[in-house]
Amino acid sequence: MTTTAVEASAGTTDRGARMYELIKELYPICRSITGRGVRDTLAILKRSIPLAIAEVPSGKAVFDWQVPDEWSIRDAYIKNSSGERIVDFKKCNLHVINYSRPVRRHMTLAELRPHLHSLPDNPDWIPYRTAYYRDTWGFCVTHRFLERLADDTYEVCVDSELKPGSLTFAELILPGQSPAEVVVYSHTCHPSLCNDNLSALAVATLLAESVARRPRRLTYRFIFGPTTIGSITWLALHESHVDRIRHGLILASLGDRGGLVYKRSRRGNAEVDRVIEYVITRSHGGRCVDFSPYGYDERQFCSPGFNLPVGRLTRTPNGQYPEYHTSADNLDFISPQALERSLQACEAICVALELNARFLNLSPKCEPRLGARGLYQNITGRNPSEFEHALLWVLNQSDGTQDLLQVAIKSGLDLTLIAQAAQALEEAGLLGRCSD
Amino acid sequence: MTTTAVEASAGTTDRGARMYELIKELYPICRSITGRGVRDTLAILKRSIPLAIAEVPSGKAVFDWQVPDEWSIRDAYIKNSSGERIVDFKKCNLHVINYSRPVRRHMTLAELRPHLHSLPDNPDWIPYRTAYYRDTWGFCVTHRFLERLADDTYEVCVDSELKPGSLTFAELILPGQSPAEVVVYSHTCHPSLCNDNLSALAVATLLAESVARRPRRLTYRFIFGPTTIGSITWLALHESHVDRIRHGLILASLGDRGGLVYKRSRRGNAEVDRVIEYVITRSHGGRCVDFSPYGYDERQFCSPGFNLPVGRLTRTPNGQYPEYHTSADNLDFISPQALERSLQACEAICVALELNARFLNLSPKCEPRLGARGLYQNITGRNPSEFEHALLWVLNQSDGTQDLLQVAIKSGLDLTLIAQAAQALEEAGLLGRCSD
Amino acid sequence: MTTTAVEASAGTTDRGARMYELIKELYPICRSITGRGVRDTLAILKRSIPLAIAEVPSGKAVFDWQVPDEWSIRDAYIKNSSGERIVDFKKCNLHVINYSRPVRRHMTLAELRPHLHSLPDNPDWIPYRTAYYRDTWGFCVTHRFLERLADDTYEVCVDSELKPGSLTFAELILPGQSPAEVVVYSHTCHPSLCNDNLSALAVATLLAESVARRPRRLTYRFIFGPTTIGSITWLALHESHVDRIRHGLILASLGDRGGLVYKRSRRGNAEVDRVIEYVITRSHGGRCVDFSPYGYDERQFCSPGFNLPVGRLTRTPNGQYPEYHTSADNLDFISPQALERSLQACEAICVALELNARFLNLSPKCEPRLGARGLYQNITGRNPSEFEHALLWVLNQSDGTQDLLQVAIKSGLDLTLIAQAAQALEEAGLLGRCSD
Repeated sequence: MTTTAVEASAGTTDRGARMYELIKELYPICRSITGRGVRDTLAILKRSIPLAIAEVPSGKAVFDWQVPDEWSIRDAYIKNSSGERIVDFKKCNLHVINYSRPVRRHMTLAELRPHLHSLPDNPDWIPYRTAYYRDTWGFCVTHRFLERLADDTYEVCVDSELKPGSLTFAELILPGQSPAEVVVYSHTCHPSLCNDNLSALAVATLLAESVARRPRRLTYRFIFGPTTIGSITWLALHESHVDRIRHGLILASLGDRGGLVYKRSRRGNAEVDRVIEYVITRSHGGRCVDFSPYGYDERQFCSPGFNLPVGRLTRTPNGQYPEYHTSADNLDFISPQALERSLQACEAICVALELNARFLNLSPKCEPRLGARGLYQNITGRNPSEFEHALLWVLNQSDGTQDLLQVAIKSGLDLTLIAQAAQALEEAGLLGRCSD
Repeated sequence: MTTTAVEASAGTTDRGARMYELIKELYPICRSITGRGVRDTLAILKRSIPLAIAEVPSGKAVFDWQVPDEWSIRDAYIKNSSGERIVDFKKCNLHVINYSRPVRRHMTLAELRPHLHSLPDNPDWIPYRTAYYRDTWGFCVTHRFLERLADDTYEVCVDSELKPGSLTFAELILPGQSPAEVVVYSHTCHPSLCNDNLSALAVATLLAESVARRPRRLTYRFIFGPTTIGSITWLALHESHVDRIRHGLILASLGDRGGLVYKRSRRGNAEVDRVIEYVITRSHGGRCVDFSPYGYDERQFCSPGFNLPVGRLTRTPNGQYPEYHTSADNLDFISPQALERSLQACEAICVALELNARFLNLSPKCEPRLGARGLYQNITGRNPSEFEHALLWVLNQSDGTQDLLQVAIKSGLDLTLIAQAAQALEEAGLLGRCSD
Repeated sequence: MTTTAVEASAGTTDRGARMYELIKELYPICRSITGRGVRDTLAILKRSIPLAIAEVPSGKAVFDWQVPDEWSIRDAYIKNSSGERIVDFKKCNLHVINYSRPVRRHMTLAELRPHLHSLPDNPDWIPYRTAYYRDTWGFCVTHRFLERLADDTYEVCVDSELKPGSLTFAELILPGQSPAEVVVYSHTCHPSLCNDNLSALAVATLLAESVARRPRRLTYRFIFGPTTIGSITWLALHESHVDRIRHGLILASLGDRGGLVYKRSRRGNAEVDRVIEYVITRSHGGRCVDFSPYGYDERQFCSPGFNLPVGRLTRTPNGQYPEYHTSADNLDFISPQALERSLQACEAICVALELNARFLNLSPKCEPRLGARGLYQNITGRNPSEFEHALLWVLNQSDGTQDLLQVAIKSGLDLTLIAQAAQALEEAGLLGRCSD
């Protein structure tokens, strides 16, 4: 776990480049909360990791919601009276409001105008808009285009369909020694937007590969699904299972140039919150913010009826960069380096979650003889080594109420060293591990 | 609740002028902890609000105390050998130590001297002194007068009487939907002193008028009584009732030029403490100080056997301005503007106490559909509005353990907006109000 | 308890000089964790205080340890081929590793070299090293000596013996009104080292004299024993007794020029921690640090199976000065003034522990009549005196949950004044003392 070296490496790495290429391949696909785009996306991820795909039928009641009808779109355009496609879904899928209902009509500019959305402050960018639960349609265009639009008769076509089908999500479960679970959720529903959220799909995929290669105490569950309705559906299907979730992490927006930001769970001081704060602020230049109920799928995991220990890792958070939810969130907005650093941070988090545990000193009255067990210097009188300090700290604090991270912070010693000391003491029969 | 505008209005308002006139009328009356002065004062307040007057007979045991005999005074003076009234109660009732026992004697300066009290540091002011529970008498004079007093034979007269009677207090109860009570206590026992405490009598009277005009969730009980023995008597008579006291506020010294100071209850973090801190520090330029057992009637409400959530609102606290308990606490020391601002702060506090409540999210697992209930934007993808943020915050935090003020502080959104969101969610059937 | 005067007195006092002379007498003795050096040391202390000596036989099981065999040493030296004693135990007992096993051999420099220990960074000092539980021997020398050592045949002699005997400790119990105990532990095992720990032996001895002279509420138990194995042995023998330990203090290194440092107990906020922080930071220029499991016998008292309220008072802590555990910790390194100030701080701590208590207001509903009991000014209206404030604070806060120190800190009044107020109220029947 040599995380400090990470920040130094600024060049493109193999893994950074591989994630960037994966995003390039996924970028053109028109994803939504249901439909073929999601399935095509998951099929591409499945080349790297053995995802299990689940389909949940439209109409299924999930808490206060229903799984919606499935949306598919073949084409969409606006033609002027000369028959030119002046807005063309095939050039950029952001042009159509996601879940637009079908329409095929001629209309005046005045009639068309309420269906056009733009960004006056960023006149060259196309906004990303959705209308999942409204019987409506619309187009998103650059503001510069909108301003130049002449009084004409336009042919408007959205060749879409909304009918019963299913909502698709994918899972990969990597069993560990313990059934206690780490959930990693990444949303799959955004169309041609790179940072939000192809970046996280790529990072989660390579993180799953990396976790799969290592021995694990904890069980890992990677979930890929649409935002909001996806996590609501998953939670509804797994309501009796959620007690197993020991830690959870929403991954999103991990490719931009900003520093890492961890948003704490609603609990605010869950183990996952403490571990991630320790890892990203010490070694990855990150910072932490308190929970708020606006964001991604942490909203559902942290709703008061669940209140699960689930936080969120991003670089620049949603809504805090102008390119957010616009066509400017493109391949230029993200970098292989940022993706690589995000992956390294996620790996370091998993390592720290694995290391952290509570122990019980089995010889709790006075210190046990460490020298007799080969754990202490032969000739005494000098200051102890760092490792000897770590042994003393772990023995002294292991009353079953504190985890190793708390001992690391109190002692000022590194978590890795503290964990090595705990392991040595466990092997010497002086320490017993508390159950997960 | 546009409280920010308050600070801007520096001119005399109608209500400020009305309170000032009321104080002018009350100023000459010689009040004490019992007797006619209090009754006359309450009769004047009763013109504005329908006070119920209670008389508690002398000798009644109230905890460690007894209701004292009633004191009345007709006249008091010191005459020199030329027969001139050189000290005259009729000119200023502060001249006589309150509760002075009757005396009529000729005496030398040496005999008289121990009975004269002055303020060497403020030689032109007459101190206010009391001797409720001592069989003694005395006069208060300016230090300049005292220094010039010649060796002479003086005729000393205190034409007072101390005999069984009663202690008088007044109440106004304004019932709300809930029996949970807000107690507002103002002491009535100080003679010709304006800030301490005619200012609070005036503010409490107009506050009662204003509360009476508005719909109320909470029940309000305004109490006007003498300090110390008054609240001790009230608590002794209402011992079985105190569980209903949800919030309490002692009002005193609300007319001087100093900023508002809220003194927290002994609990330190009661709802009333948090609400008043929020209101006065955000919008009324006030500040808060911790509880201490020196002051006014909060001493009794916050004695350890009661420990009620009762704080105190003043401008400059007792003992922290030189005019305190002297003849300089006169009509020049207070202003209609300060009175008006104090009243506005009190009103804002009551509004906030009314707004604040705990709620339970009735759809606590995942977020409920807000769009389907007309509470969320149709086309999504943009950042939510402030009101939408407020809805999310209230839903997420409403687990029955936190009140709206805590949600407001956590979210950084205004309490009024948070309360509006709670109301909208309650009307939509998504939120249930916890009982008071 | 006029502790503020202490800091001003910089000259040598009688008590400072007496402690310094005691240390001078003890300095040459070769102490260890067992053996004659300890017995001789305790015999000298016994001239001042009536210590009870205990001998615990070798081999006795004490938790994870056994009482070791007793070590005695008559002589030790290294002679060169000319027969000169170039290293001589009789000149400095630090020359021999404490608990060195007997050896008598001729050997080359190459054979001898691994048995020689020095301090390259402080080439003129002899280190202090121990090997209590290893079958080994060795010499400690200055680095300058080591570097000059020629290739020669050396005669090496350690004329020591290790055989069953006993471990010696001493106790002085000073009974108080209450069986609740203050334990004061000082370690006796270090040979010719002045600060660590002859300084604490001297301070503890004079502290015991001083405590013995004063009336006591608490019982005091002064323990003099070897470090680590000594406190382990004491705790093993007194396991059923430790519930009586209300406060504990390890004394060590109290003669150097550094300021006082109190190391908190593992609990961190025990009464002893709060009291000592109050005393030494307010009046003795001291500071506090959090518990850590490296140090002296607090390690055993604060092991998780005991977790007793035992802190540690030193001047510069162990390992934080270069002279630590070297021949430079000699009579020049300590001063009578520092010893005297350490003693005064210890006395002030005991006084504060005696004063501190929890009380119950026996008249808890509203304030009781203080004037009627002669505890309040006759003529009221003025600000109360400090003592009157103290009375109000003690009455208001005495709900049985807070001790006088907490009232002192909250009120900003001195603990002594608060304790005087509590005593006056107790005498007036208004306050009841909570049991220890």
